[in-house]
Amino acid sequence: MRSNGSALLYEVGPRDGLQNEAAPIPTSEKVAFVDRLTRAGVPAIEVGAFVSPKWVPQMADTAAVFAAIERRASTEYVALVPNLRGLEGAIAARATAVAIFAAASETFSRRNINQSIDEAFATYADVARAALAAGLPVRGYLSTSFGCPFEGDVPSHRVVELTKRLLDLGVYQVAVSDTIGVAHPGQVRRVIEALGASIDLDRIALHFHDTRGTALANVFASLEFGISTFDASAGGLGGCPYSPGATGNLATEDLLYMLHGVGRATDIDLDAVFEASTALEPHLGHQLPSRYVRARLASGRR
Amino acid sequence: MRSNGSALLYEVGPRDGLQNEAAPIPTSEKVAFVDRLTRAGVPAIEVGAFVSPKWVPQMADTAAVFAAIERRASTEYVALVPNLRGLEGAIAARATAVAIFAAASETFSRRNINQSIDEAFATYADVARAALAAGLPVRGYLSTSFGCPFEGDVPSHRVVELTKRLLDLGVYQVAVSDTIGVAHPGQVRRVIEALGASIDLDRIALHFHDTRGTALANVFASLEFGISTFDASAGGLGGCPYSPGATGNLATEDLLYMLHGVGRATDIDLDAVFEASTALEPHLGHQLPSRYVRARLASGRR
Repeated sequence: MRSNGSALLYEVGPRDGLQNEAAPIPTSEKVAFVDRLTRAGVPAIEVGAFVSPKWVPQMADTAAVFAAIERRASTEYVALVPNLRGLEGAIAARATAVAIFAAASETFSRRNINQSIDEAFATYADVARAALAAGLPVRGYLSTSFGCPFEGDVPSHRVVELTKRLLDLGVYQVAVSDTIGVAHPGQVRRVIEALGASIDLDRIALHFHDTRGTALANVFASLEFGISTFDASAGGLGGCPYSPGATGNLATEDLLYMLHGVGRATDIDLDAVFEASTALEPHLGHQLPSRYVRARLASGRR
Repeated sequence: MRSNGSALLYEVGPRDGLQNEAAPIPTSEKVAFVDRLTRAGVPAIEVGAFVSPKWVPQMADTAAVFAAIERRASTEYVALVPNLRGLEGAIAARATAVAIFAAASETFSRRNINQSIDEAFATYADVARAALAAGLPVRGYLSTSFGCPFEGDVPSHRVVELTKRLLDLGVYQVAVSDTIGVAHPGQVRRVIEALGASIDLDRIALHFHDTRGTALANVFASLEFGISTFDASAGGLGGCPYSPGATGNLATEDLLYMLHGVGRATDIDLDAVFEASTALEPHLGHQLPSRYVRARLASGRR
């Protein structure tokens, strides 16, 4: 087992996190949130999405957020883009990379973006080509890689096939994603072993949700395969606000607490991430689900 | 890494869980809870504690609970006993084993039971001798083994020394316990390696709290050392009711979901444990913190 080395965080709170929050967050608060994450030393931040504000109202001000944030050369500022129009927005906003979002489940793809997997890939091929031509690196999500809310099990061979298709588009990294939070370390090992048989695992990131409490166990199981990039959301943003205790994204603070504990350096200041999340909390209408945050607030230590 | 084999659950919900719940639970509900756990196939259940009702009012009816529960020969029904008087209660109640509770931190010991570690061990020596003479196996907890709320870090050599002292009393198993939920897999490995240098790890159980979301990662890290007994609390009972999201005991359902996922058989019916916890939930005055339970209730699947 590789027990040393560093790890990389891909911060999804401002996009994947806030997108799933019901309360509208003021643009100025989003900017302050991203700025605090930058100052915390987070190497990659998904700042927002250039998507239809009709479908995702929380992302309607993404251009304004990009315009106002402070930037560090050592940080990537990523925009999610579903199509060429979104890519134009990302370029205009001076995003330093873009992300595309494919699904491993046909039903989920149709329900989520109203396109079949093949239709979505046709669109993404155009997006990736244009983005790379404009000098923007492209990152790919492969959602529902560990299970689909509609189809249930998703076979590993399909995850491998679609990961390859994303890489063939010129994507630098695929975030293999447990959208519904069902993955456990046994399944994580099987999927990583299947991926590793034909794909360089340096191209793989993992995106876990802590819905059943297994996210950190999954991260820990992944480390022994040499996976070193993990998605997480500051404060655990994006948990279901109507079901206290039910959570979505793995919380950045929880991830850092464990990574640092097992000797994986990240160059990220956990205290500063905690400050970023807790500064946003009053605007959410509910408590941040991060267990680290809750434990630290309960202990009275800010 | 040992990736197969079975695992054992030591269920602490009726004692450690309920003891930390503020709402008084009717005796009949406690009995129904234990009976449901028995029928779920749980091999060991800590049913209650023979302690002063002045200090722990929730445990005042332990004798009544023991008198009313259904029993299976394949299940241990354990009582926590702090002293010889408690042991008398456990014997009269026909407990099949007793548990004693030592601390790895001097300050915690004094604050928790108003005795130094040495004073507590003197008492436990008498308890263990009398229990074994009465034919009752004795289990030992070693609390604050991964950190103390007052002293902070607890050195591994002290955990090893006190685990040996417990075993020297004739204890069949020591539950090395993360009372405040600070352990991460890096620390877990260090403590287990220290223990394994001079102690048969078959005598070690691990008791984790999910306060910072690391409990399942800790369990997963422990499995590779051959540790196979874990304490957990059905529904995550014993989480702090005043701080939603802040949790105490690792939830039995979360543990079983992961253990079964990584191929560790337990012969326990997860659905039946879920039924046991959710039947108790209306009496608690708050939601069960188990992430598995919350996710399953949110999905509408009972």
